[in-house]
Amino acid sequence: MPKSDKSAVTTYPINDLLANRWSPRAFADRAIPTEVLGSIFEAARWAPSSRNLQPWHFVIAARHHDADGFARLLSTLMGANKSWGKNASVLLVAVTEPNPDSAPGPNRYAHYDVGQAMAHLSIQAMSCGLFIHQMGGFNREKAREVLEIPDQYEPVVSAAIGYLADPSILSDTMKKRELAPRSRNPLAEQVFSAKWGQTHPDYA
Amino acid sequence: MPKSDKSAVTTYPINDLLANRWSPRAFADRAIPTEVLGSIFEAARWAPSSRNLQPWHFVIAARHHDADGFARLLSTLMGANKSWGKNASVLLVAVTEPNPDSAPGPNRYAHYDVGQAMAHLSIQAMSCGLFIHQMGGFNREKAREVLEIPDQYEPVVSAAIGYLADPSILSDTMKKRELAPRSRNPLAEQVFSAKWGQTHPDYA
Repeated sequence: MPKSDKSAVTTYPINDLLANRWSPRAFADRAIPTEVLGSIFEAARWAPSSRNLQPWHFVIAARHHDADGFARLLSTLMGANKSWGKNASVLLVAVTEPNPDSAPGPNRYAHYDVGQAMAHLSIQAMSCGLFIHQMGGFNREKAREVLEIPDQYEPVVSAAIGYLADPSILSDTMKKRELAPRSRNPLAEQVFSAKWGQTHPDYA
Repeated sequence: MPKSDKSAVTTYPINDLLANRWSPRAFADRAIPTEVLGSIFEAARWAPSSRNLQPWHFVIAARHHDADGFARLLSTLMGANKSWGKNASVLLVAVTEPNPDSAPGPNRYAHYDVGQAMAHLSIQAMSCGLFIHQMGGFNREKAREVLEIPDQYEPVVSAAIGYLADPSILSDTMKKRELAPRSRNPLAEQVFSAKWGQTHPDYA
């Protein structure tokens, strides 16, 4: 995969799937083949989880195959997410089980492990030439209602899956965001040496 | 990378880095080069996060370079984790900030995004020939104390990083776990079609 302008700027090299991952808004009008989507959810399925509880479920709809289902998922998106999200090939809501039936006590890694599963799913998507845009901006109560999610489960995050399109399909505001460079805090603020706040000499 | 007995058994193929990832206990007595460890934390650094808050910090110690720091991290591990964790090349505690200074209100994705960062870190580790074993079984209060983690931050997970060793270095109980096949719930229980509980025809 060629390096894009959105590629991570790193001091130490990272795998292309990770370096070239970002969260676009411009998606192409193109269906995702069944086997490709299958690979993406297999990747989530094989993510690690605390006590192997696998506290994730995905409610999904493909725009080209289930217009009604896609409209239901789209109706839960908020603000700008709805305006560009309508072009995604697939929308999903990821759901967790904070108090699992199958294990004693609350699962303190319920959200954490959904995060891991979504990360694995995103990286498999990259491996298939697809991009994911995760969204916190969706109406959780509406999602519960229109997707019929039972009380013991909790909607965590929404996401769009699709093939990249040219940013020119976006509104001016969105196009600006689409083309902005990515940024991160310095490694020195994220990695400490054996004690909080102690800069690691190699990663300063 | 050759397929191992621990490789994921999938209906749809997934990237080797994801398929061959698992959480070993047998680690080799081998230091991780500075640049390799740098790549692993760069991968975490470039993980996605809600509002780009990057709510993760890693307190780390390398056994071959900082015996005292390593011993401090090791002292926080519980039960069996301590017995095999002592052989890791690097131990870490990942820490989050549930109520960020830099943004209004609590961050509902604090744990979720640490999960994503740890997943990216794990996959980069695989890409460098290393394995990660994440652990929920560590003493959070002791970690806070010995690593001097301030009140506003929260220890989330511990992890061991290292090169694979032969399972024969483990106790009999641990060896048995090390050689057990990996398992996951069926895709049909994890992926629903536009409505909770509705099996997706392609992923049944």
